[in-house]
Amino acid sequence: MSAQDDRSKGTLIELPPEECVALLGTTTVGRLAFVDANGQQLIPVNFTIIDEVIYFRTSRDGILAGLADGHEDIAFGVDHHDVFRDGWNVTVRGTVAAVTDEAVAETVQSHTRLHPWAGGDRPLVMAITPRAIDGRRVKGH
Amino acid sequence: MSAQDDRSKGTLIELPPEECVALLGTTTVGRLAFVDANGQQLIPVNFTIIDEVIYFRTSRDGILAGLADGHEDIAFGVDHHDVFRDGWNVTVRGTVAAVTDEAVAETVQSHTRLHPWAGGDRPLVMAITPRAIDGRRVKGH
Repeated sequence: MSAQDDRSKGTLIELPPEECVALLGTTTVGRLAFVDANGQQLIPVNFTIIDEVIYFRTSRDGILAGLADGHEDIAFGVDHHDVFRDGWNVTVRGTVAAVTDEAVAETVQSHTRLHPWAGGDRPLVMAITPRAIDGRRVKGH
Repeated sequence: MSAQDDRSKGTLIELPPEECVALLGTTTVGRLAFVDANGQQLIPVNFTIIDEVIYFRTSRDGILAGLADGHEDIAFGVDHHDVFRDGWNVTVRGTVAAVTDEAVAETVQSHTRLHPWAGGDRPLVMAITPRAIDGRRVKGH
């Protein structure tokens, strides 16, 4: 076995759900994967998590606005990896729809962490409700 | 408008394809989105790019092995964002399939950048062939 092969033998640890939720709270940008009429989409969004619901904001006319009426099968992922190739990833699978409760929407919009990454006017508040959450920690060496 | 609102007005710049390809070469972990029999998947993979084809390795029995016979609609994304909320993202849309040319597979497997993030034995070499590539740079302030 070569040194290169040795280096590729990372260690992978499945994470318990509560640690996955905690890790989601350590970062502010995730990627939302879903299929729409144009096929597979994968879009980074700035998010916050409140009571295990993931919220993000979007404009009324973008690709994400097409999710406002609800999508039953999305995946949302966050991950972190350092230059030593240690890291973790958490993937949420569930549903997404626009928040229709104005009090909830206002709470989310006032959340200091929830500045949309791409800026601009983003009045739609969307909620991802997890059906399943899983994650892994990887030790690269 | 509050200070918070000011901070949310990021600037978004669409990137030309050649810059997208160059940015893909600056990082080693991307996320692959596709739908299989279990629904929407979103999986981080360690990758390399050679001649505008994205390669990654996987085991013969994981979720990614299910792509070996080919999948016509995947999205693959990389992004970077710093603590000042400046960043970029590049998304490739295209097809994926196992590499059947042994010479190509050997070249990829010997590529020093392509150590699978999660380690383990990963004999399958997969290739993502882009159909479209787009990217954006975001200035958070």
